[in-house]
Amino acid sequence: MSTVIVNKIYELKKHIKDWKNNNYTIGLVPTMGALHKGHASLIKEAREACDKVVVSVFVNPIQFGPNEDFDKYPRQIDNDKALCEELGVDIIFAPSAEEMYGKNNRLNNTDLTFVCPPYNLVDCLCGKSRQGHFDGVATVVLKLFNITKADFAFFGQKDAQQLYIIKTMVRDLNLDIKIVPCSIVRENDGLALSSRNTYLSKEERSWALSMSKALNQIKTLYDGGVTDTNVLLDSAISILNKNLDIEYIEFRDFDTFEKIDNAKTNTLVAIAAKSGKTRLIDNIIL
Amino acid sequence: MSTVIVNKIYELKKHIKDWKNNNYTIGLVPTMGALHKGHASLIKEAREACDKVVVSVFVNPIQFGPNEDFDKYPRQIDNDKALCEELGVDIIFAPSAEEMYGKNNRLNNTDLTFVCPPYNLVDCLCGKSRQGHFDGVATVVLKLFNITKADFAFFGQKDAQQLYIIKTMVRDLNLDIKIVPCSIVRENDGLALSSRNTYLSKEERSWALSMSKALNQIKTLYDGGVTDTNVLLDSAISILNKNLDIEYIEFRDFDTFEKIDNAKTNTLVAIAAKSGKTRLIDNIIL
Repeated sequence: MSTVIVNKIYELKKHIKDWKNNNYTIGLVPTMGALHKGHASLIKEAREACDKVVVSVFVNPIQFGPNEDFDKYPRQIDNDKALCEELGVDIIFAPSAEEMYGKNNRLNNTDLTFVCPPYNLVDCLCGKSRQGHFDGVATVVLKLFNITKADFAFFGQKDAQQLYIIKTMVRDLNLDIKIVPCSIVRENDGLALSSRNTYLSKEERSWALSMSKALNQIKTLYDGGVTDTNVLLDSAISILNKNLDIEYIEFRDFDTFEKIDNAKTNTLVAIAAKSGKTRLIDNIIL
Repeated sequence: MSTVIVNKIYELKKHIKDWKNNNYTIGLVPTMGALHKGHASLIKEAREACDKVVVSVFVNPIQFGPNEDFDKYPRQIDNDKALCEELGVDIIFAPSAEEMYGKNNRLNNTDLTFVCPPYNLVDCLCGKSRQGHFDGVATVVLKLFNITKADFAFFGQKDAQQLYIIKTMVRDLNLDIKIVPCSIVRENDGLALSSRNTYLSKEERSWALSMSKALNQIKTLYDGGVTDTNVLLDSAISILNKNLDIEYIEFRDFDTFEKIDNAKTNTLVAIAAKSGKTRLIDNIIL
């Protein structure tokens, strides 16, 4: 059976109703399209775990800042569809901004009801430089949860802060959905997959490689018994390419999201940096 | 069958699951308890429209400001239960604050995911003097919607701004629930019912009576052809007792919530005032 592209909410709801009447479990993979092997791994997990799989493809305007790459973000629905066909996706939900936010384009908090994650989780890491980003993410994700009535939703661990925020939203708002975290997928040389990698020149790409190398170095030291985050940080900095514009490297307890001085099991080590004009993120969990 | 009081979310969910398996429709009447005839009218509508009726009784801490009446708000679960029995309510859901907001009491936006209604709807009328109130309302209401999986929820038109905000949340977050507005219930002398009326001395109560009188006067003039809101406002002010501390009297289109200069069909006329220390609200729709 081939993948159906659905653009309208009411149309998707008809399929969902049918599926619910048949007691099918529904898996949602929320994406902004430009699908790569990272997304493919989420879709495969969804395909294995659920009777029906919906991949949403929506470049969500309310999670982009005014100086960010909303306009140039890659859109390639034909490629996306081909991949989804191959992976046995039932429906691609690809709504317009108007379909999601109404005819009069309610895109900001004067006109639209927003979901606002806890300030403690937002005012750090990527949230520091991307004001309002996670409000936009949480809002669209809740909308997608409500529209699809999914039983499971699959999120990449690459966006570790997003993953933590979504899990917190599920807890705080008593949502009946299971969040499934999926491992980071990397190129052979270690670069974490991202739709934004297409922005990189060859040179910028080579600089970016040092990010995963630095994270691996931290893991190696930690496995060897080093837990002092200052020591781990210094070793990472010595490896990171000098042309990168480092935004943060942080160590956080991935259970509580608190900053820590001594690495331990389930420590998130997260990094963000610009390579040229392209902002990249990566992380590992110790 | 008698009304069951349920304090735990997991316990309520068991009932809800049972009901859903039987395809029963579920009606929710969210309250803060201290039930009066106004609530009774909501419950009666729910009882008629739905197979199963849940009345939530929860004095929600996150919708009270620091100088408001959270501590002294009337709590009388035995009376509430008696009324619910009489009206055939299936379940009273009366959780603790800890049950709703966790052991470490996540009560503010540093720790808790909040639902934030549009600023345009919040930065006016009651929202002006009650900062954060509607964020707290929207958040707890969404939690209750998610916990009960209700098909219908019943809200009094007395809290007109709240009603409008909840309807907007349902639209913006793609919730699958029908909001049923219910008319204001009044004492024989016109005073709108409110759990806070119990705070009023005999004298304060007599002052408060002029609020509904002023609204009635506006309606009479409007029915007689007067639409200029300045004229209508002046007539109301001439009737309002001089001991009341008027917070606002406003005319708004109840479809768009915009302020209007000329009254028309579906105009909300809303008033808030303090009688002694007790803050009261009332409204009519023309």
